[in-house]
Amino acid sequence: MIINIDWKPDKTSKIPIYIQIKEYIHKKIINGEWTVGMKIPSQRKLAELLEVNRSTVMNAFEELIADGFLEGNTGNGTRVKNNLWSLFQTTSPPNWNHYVENGIYKPNLPTIQDIHKVEPQTNIIRLGTGEPSPEMYPKDIMGEVLKTLSTKIEIMGYEEEKGLPQLRKQLCHYLETLGINATPSSILVVSGALQALQLISLGLLRGGSTLLLENPSYVNSLNVFQSLGIKLANIPMDRNGMDTSFIKSYKRRYNASLVYTNPTFHNPTGNVMTLERRKHLLTVCEEEQLPIIEDDVYRELWIDTPPPPALKSMDNNGSILYIGSISKALSPGLRIGWIVGPEQVINRLADIKMQTDYGSSSLSQWAVTEWLESGKYVKHLESMREALRLRRSTAIRVLQNEFVDIAEWTVPSGGFYIWLRLPPTISIKELFYEALAFGILLNPGKLYDEQSFHYLRLSYSYASLFDLEKGIKKLGQIIRKLINN
Amino acid sequence: MIINIDWKPDKTSKIPIYIQIKEYIHKKIINGEWTVGMKIPSQRKLAELLEVNRSTVMNAFEELIADGFLEGNTGNGTRVKNNLWSLFQTTSPPNWNHYVENGIYKPNLPTIQDIHKVEPQTNIIRLGTGEPSPEMYPKDIMGEVLKTLSTKIEIMGYEEEKGLPQLRKQLCHYLETLGINATPSSILVVSGALQALQLISLGLLRGGSTLLLENPSYVNSLNVFQSLGIKLANIPMDRNGMDTSFIKSYKRRYNASLVYTNPTFHNPTGNVMTLERRKHLLTVCEEEQLPIIEDDVYRELWIDTPPPPALKSMDNNGSILYIGSISKALSPGLRIGWIVGPEQVINRLADIKMQTDYGSSSLSQWAVTEWLESGKYVKHLESMREALRLRRSTAIRVLQNEFVDIAEWTVPSGGFYIWLRLPPTISIKELFYEALAFGILLNPGKLYDEQSFHYLRLSYSYASLFDLEKGIKKLGQIIRKLINN
Repeated sequence: MIINIDWKPDKTSKIPIYIQIKEYIHKKIINGEWTVGMKIPSQRKLAELLEVNRSTVMNAFEELIADGFLEGNTGNGTRVKNNLWSLFQTTSPPNWNHYVENGIYKPNLPTIQDIHKVEPQTNIIRLGTGEPSPEMYPKDIMGEVLKTLSTKIEIMGYEEEKGLPQLRKQLCHYLETLGINATPSSILVVSGALQALQLISLGLLRGGSTLLLENPSYVNSLNVFQSLGIKLANIPMDRNGMDTSFIKSYKRRYNASLVYTNPTFHNPTGNVMTLERRKHLLTVCEEEQLPIIEDDVYRELWIDTPPPPALKSMDNNGSILYIGSISKALSPGLRIGWIVGPEQVINRLADIKMQTDYGSSSLSQWAVTEWLESGKYVKHLESMREALRLRRSTAIRVLQNEFVDIAEWTVPSGGFYIWLRLPPTISIKELFYEALAFGILLNPGKLYDEQSFHYLRLSYSYASLFDLEKGIKKLGQIIRKLINN
Repeated sequence: MIINIDWKPDKTSKIPIYIQIKEYIHKKIINGEWTVGMKIPSQRKLAELLEVNRSTVMNAFEELIADGFLEGNTGNGTRVKNNLWSLFQTTSPPNWNHYVENGIYKPNLPTIQDIHKVEPQTNIIRLGTGEPSPEMYPKDIMGEVLKTLSTKIEIMGYEEEKGLPQLRKQLCHYLETLGINATPSSILVVSGALQALQLISLGLLRGGSTLLLENPSYVNSLNVFQSLGIKLANIPMDRNGMDTSFIKSYKRRYNASLVYTNPTFHNPTGNVMTLERRKHLLTVCEEEQLPIIEDDVYRELWIDTPPPPALKSMDNNGSILYIGSISKALSPGLRIGWIVGPEQVINRLADIKMQTDYGSSSLSQWAVTEWLESGKYVKHLESMREALRLRRSTAIRVLQNEFVDIAEWTVPSGGFYIWLRLPPTISIKELFYEALAFGILLNPGKLYDEQSFHYLRLSYSYASLFDLEKGIKKLGQIIRKLINN
């Protein structure tokens, strides 16, 4: 388990470093941030995180032990023994661990937790991150948008249940360009596609229901459905997308309630579902009265040619809940996405959204409205595609130069991901930590499919162009080293 | 049940209104927004919402029935019969009602749903809304903040698990002024206090656990705990706050896991827990190892004198999860709040937050950082207090002039609310709809306590000063009319 610490000793200060560390820990204990009985990071780990010698940490620990705040470093680690007050009290703090371990939601997968902890570190080359690179962030245009908003926003209160009316109106126009017809009352603004999935899990399903989905799938890396006892049944996929011939029998076998699909520039494989498959999926699901969640957040990011039309654009009877977002093409920091579907379903999800967070940031909604209304968003998509084309060719060039004998891949026609197949002989877990030691953060394929333990989700979207080239080259060397060991 | 509609016919158009209505409904059906089998609003209701004669709606319905899109208006209402495609198909759409009715989360209480639907309407005097008035919105200063941000924000990506580091640093400084010591790693940025409660419900509790809370309580108006099978046990309160003498026995009787309290300018009563009670609450909960959720979102809004210190500032052993927010004092539209607590608990809640929405709007977080860092927030609080003082005295003056013989109340020393006790002989439900007919939106006390059916939560925070006076006067007249009936 990787831990983070939000402080570093000041090496230029006159106060000895071990005293600074002692005071830091002391403060955490006094504040009740580290509670009595809590296990604290080991000396070795702290020394590493604080970038000091282990003996320095040891000196701090020894004084805190002598003062009665910490309990001796037995084989079981160091724990908080007392705080300033507990010395005079006979009571102990609540058993928070009991709460932390028994909550309804499952924790994120350990690897996901580790990835979240490493991500904020600087000097890390993130080769798995599914997010537009800071290099592609349109700082100047966002600046213009914020300047416009600085005089435009008259009031920022709670918005309507389904989101800012002006934004939903703009989304109608935008969706029309994708062939999707909707009026504002059948659109719910959400805080990104993940929240859309959470609202669906809380609002439309029961424990024991089953979701059919492509395998591998981004959803397998989450616990949002699983935490509530909703089962996932994996449908095989090939380069043409989900193998829709399985749906009929799987629906019966698992008594499935919904199909989840990410048909366009699929996460993590980069595949695009063909038009033929899309039509078949629609036909089968209509016959089976099986609703579909279409997660279409990568649609705009085509590199070669526009992808086949959205399922939603061919939806004749309101079978599809369509999810879109500006996170992938503009900025995940705005946390704005949308769900489009039959009005009674959108009403229900809007009611759940009101119970969850009373709506998404009004400021973010205004910003997205402005991006759409001014035409800046559509223009920005062009430069995104251009930037992604360059990034993809860089990644593919390095792969062709360095990986031909150690990996297999398909060139994606859009999106962020290359689904990299490595020799089954090497341990991806070992590779993950080995790469991390060299400052490279990876996304193991196993997150998306238990059987894909010899895959990586390689992303050409996040690292700087320079780091992308350097990182993939280095990755090749590390893989070779592991193969040769 | 109140319904909303996002469209009105264009009365200046050359196209007859009934044709416009027909086309509107036709589009909804063709788009799959109104699905086959769905019950649509009645002619009477539509006529009212669209502000047309019922005969106009009837003409539209008749043509749609003749064309096969709608099914005759039997006693069971009008339903969608076919869409353009279903005429050629043998299948029907998914049974969405089954999904909508069977999801895990309970719907919001019907009155809350109705209130949410009325709120966006213009020309409504909202006498129950717990939100700062548009009159108090600091448009110019927010404009300055946005201008600053337009050049300051270098990148807006996913932020760290616990929120923007710069914001958490500013929050540490701010919390210190409230006597609360915390380092950034024990703070989680959330999208408002309601999300804090949702994260706690999903992350720290199990179905069957019990939460002790004041009665009445804002939490009783939510379903966020109840939907997950978490029970609420009501502890009586008086003008000094929660009656803490009940806690020991209630903990045993209900095997309670947590205490929820809103001790300062309590929602809905406006009460402030005395210092003595605060100390007793802490002592009892420490003895019982019972953690406390302190919801302190109204603290800054004192009018007469600063309230007693936060429980969290007297928390010696990490028993308290402290919730704060800028929604009440600055702008709910930013959707930014925070939870402060022991680090292992904050880590857990941060992990759940990542599963819920991947963090709060980065733009909103930057905005709050700027408000805090520049000192604008603390300065703004002064003008908020001044504005609330004027609003409170306006409301109290009207009450004293017009309500002395029909209601009882206590003058609140801060916050937004007056807990208004009406004669038990009048039906608050009747009053709610009667007031609505006069354009006044109320919050019935029953939302916060089943037994408080003769109370209203009157808010002096939202309506314009002019409407506040006018609305309360009118309310008095309506109450008198009901009493005399």
